[in-house]
Amino acid sequence: MSVKNAFYAQSGGPTAVINASACAVIQTARAHPDQIGKVYAGRNGIVGALTEELIDTSLESDAQIAKLRTTPGAAFGSCRYKLKSLEEHRAQYERLIQVFKAHDIGYFFYNGGNDSMDTAWKVSQLAETMDHPLVCVGVPKTVDNDLPLTDCCPGFGSVAKYVATSIREAGLDVASMAKTSTKIFVLEVMGRHAGWITAACGLAAEREGAAPHILLFPEVAFDEVAFLARVQACVERYGYCTVAVSEGLKNGEGQFVAEQGGKDAFGHSQLGGAGQWIAQLIKDRLGHKYHWALADYLQRAARHLASKTDADQAYALGRAAVELALAGRNAVMPTVQRLSDAPYRWEVGVAELKNVANVERKMPTDFITPDGFHITDKCRAYLSPLIEGEDYPPYKNGLPDYVTLDNRLVAKQLPDFQI
Amino acid sequence: MSVKNAFYAQSGGPTAVINASACAVIQTARAHPDQIGKVYAGRNGIVGALTEELIDTSLESDAQIAKLRTTPGAAFGSCRYKLKSLEEHRAQYERLIQVFKAHDIGYFFYNGGNDSMDTAWKVSQLAETMDHPLVCVGVPKTVDNDLPLTDCCPGFGSVAKYVATSIREAGLDVASMAKTSTKIFVLEVMGRHAGWITAACGLAAEREGAAPHILLFPEVAFDEVAFLARVQACVERYGYCTVAVSEGLKNGEGQFVAEQGGKDAFGHSQLGGAGQWIAQLIKDRLGHKYHWALADYLQRAARHLASKTDADQAYALGRAAVELALAGRNAVMPTVQRLSDAPYRWEVGVAELKNVANVERKMPTDFITPDGFHITDKCRAYLSPLIEGEDYPPYKNGLPDYVTLDNRLVAKQLPDFQI
Repeated sequence: MSVKNAFYAQSGGPTAVINASACAVIQTARAHPDQIGKVYAGRNGIVGALTEELIDTSLESDAQIAKLRTTPGAAFGSCRYKLKSLEEHRAQYERLIQVFKAHDIGYFFYNGGNDSMDTAWKVSQLAETMDHPLVCVGVPKTVDNDLPLTDCCPGFGSVAKYVATSIREAGLDVASMAKTSTKIFVLEVMGRHAGWITAACGLAAEREGAAPHILLFPEVAFDEVAFLARVQACVERYGYCTVAVSEGLKNGEGQFVAEQGGKDAFGHSQLGGAGQWIAQLIKDRLGHKYHWALADYLQRAARHLASKTDADQAYALGRAAVELALAGRNAVMPTVQRLSDAPYRWEVGVAELKNVANVERKMPTDFITPDGFHITDKCRAYLSPLIEGEDYPPYKNGLPDYVTLDNRLVAKQLPDFQI
Repeated sequence: MSVKNAFYAQSGGPTAVINASACAVIQTARAHPDQIGKVYAGRNGIVGALTEELIDTSLESDAQIAKLRTTPGAAFGSCRYKLKSLEEHRAQYERLIQVFKAHDIGYFFYNGGNDSMDTAWKVSQLAETMDHPLVCVGVPKTVDNDLPLTDCCPGFGSVAKYVATSIREAGLDVASMAKTSTKIFVLEVMGRHAGWITAACGLAAEREGAAPHILLFPEVAFDEVAFLARVQACVERYGYCTVAVSEGLKNGEGQFVAEQGGKDAFGHSQLGGAGQWIAQLIKDRLGHKYHWALADYLQRAARHLASKTDADQAYALGRAAVELALAGRNAVMPTVQRLSDAPYRWEVGVAELKNVANVERKMPTDFITPDGFHITDKCRAYLSPLIEGEDYPPYKNGLPDYVTLDNRLVAKQLPDFQI
């Protein structure tokens, strides 16, 4: 195969380490100038391929690219834009191939979650029928940790480390004040459908009585009576109670607790989410003073507290993606294969995109304790290695020194295309 | 003076570094066994002195005490309990002296903010009249940064570093997604009356267009029209807009925006705070998709991201407090005296408690830009050194290895006392 350019795009919600994968893709490509020409990045993800807004990463210095490894967000822009079926969106898939042809792109690296792997798979199929040789390789990324065939997903370990650290710290704070003031602390974390991030909070509870005392998973229908009894028991035993709740907590009817008919249990109109709702419930029913926090984007952008394991894996899978492509492996995704829990050992594996696309990995039921309020030892053994190690960014003026690239676009070759 | 025991208490909301001051007090006292016997710590602050619940810190190993330096929260417990005037609460002040007499306490170190310095001052006065020799020294602590006569307050620099880092990180996240998804990010930070923490967020905006784009201070009456115009201008110019808002944001009538008659501008009942209110206002008026975060206790407990300057000052002032006491200086508080901004140089000074008590330092008006939406260069020059340097805690199993002390109590000598 002659020298071909590569296209790289970031998809979906950013993570603390998605740019580490980007860094690896670009650095590995630069190390193989005999096979890969320029790496073009989609401006705002796959949308940039459709609109032919291609960022020429060759205009960035090696030093700038190296700084991607420790910079959160999605450096080239990302998007929530799902290409649907080939039948429905055929024009869009064909446009992708046209853009790739116009810019002599022979490699397609797509860094995202389930939907992205599905898109990459479809593109690989279409390229064959359109007679454009294209090697498509997925690079896994999602804080949701829900991709199949990989032991974990880059991005998850860092959010896990952040939320576990945060609830440990807030727990020490509220424990200090509980005698005369706040007795309840609630942290709302991400997880609309799966409780992986909530489970990670549980890692902080390494000794009897330590925060978090109660975890509320989207997988477990909320049982108000059992929950309030548990809260009260914690307050009586430890003087305070800390709760980590998934944004996706649902009641027995499968409704999100924070959206039950637009009104909460107390007749208040509902503006907030699960954390606020749980905190107010405790206040109304048990009378305890509360504080609550909503980590929101802070949790998935917290590169300052990245897991070294996670950052290493994000980089390793980005590099492996390019190496797989150079070896001619099409329609695949590099994965993390766990060899042992303790000591933690892992290696890079390979999955077929067709087996990854649209398959969602659930949290095993035996990762949640029978009462539904905490994680099991089995879950802890799985999660613990994923937050191991610190990988601090450089600092300047007291703040993390994150890079912002120039992101200069390549001249367009094609007519405009409406998406 | 013969060997006397010391009493140390933590007061008010914990900070990331209040235990660094505790560490310094205990380590410095241990280095002077010829003058200081045991250090007793109040269980839950001054309440522990009133109830004669004294923690014997001599039962903790040097290694455990050393770990206090990097542990957030208040290791001995704190409280919100203000002793009022001597006339109203004379019995309580007398009780303190009785407890100090019963346990041969000749030194009183009180680690807190304005109220605590007032209490320490009153206790020092009463001790004289009750013929109990007592050296009272305050140790400043408050994330609110509102104590007078000191350049800054231990605890503030670390929360400043945390909020500035957090909004920089979240800003990169939202910038990534703004094209097709969230365009607005709002971070609510502490500051009921003073905008120091909101101002600190502004440190992250080191270049044109970087987050945070708008700061909303409690010192500046909220101007909805000007604010919304600024938000829209940011979205048009940069594609997104990030806002840091103080929990204490008020309207022109001096009401907290989040508590205007129990209903917000849209007729919703009000559960949330300023951050949620601002985010919803933008959505309702401008239609932009938003995310918002509530840092709450996470910001003041974030020892994992402590400012080295702050941690060093917290330790230095704890040590200075003991040294002042050993030198016979009564009714004083060690302070931070700034010698220069760049390079930042500082030394320990001394203030009289009577000049500190109940005086609140405001943010200078020339620290806020004339439009009311950001910080000035003068403010930046003041704040920047306070977040300099990293001072990471040790980690174990991927999480900060914080110490929890045994906190064993001394046998009571006195009858019970109702507080």
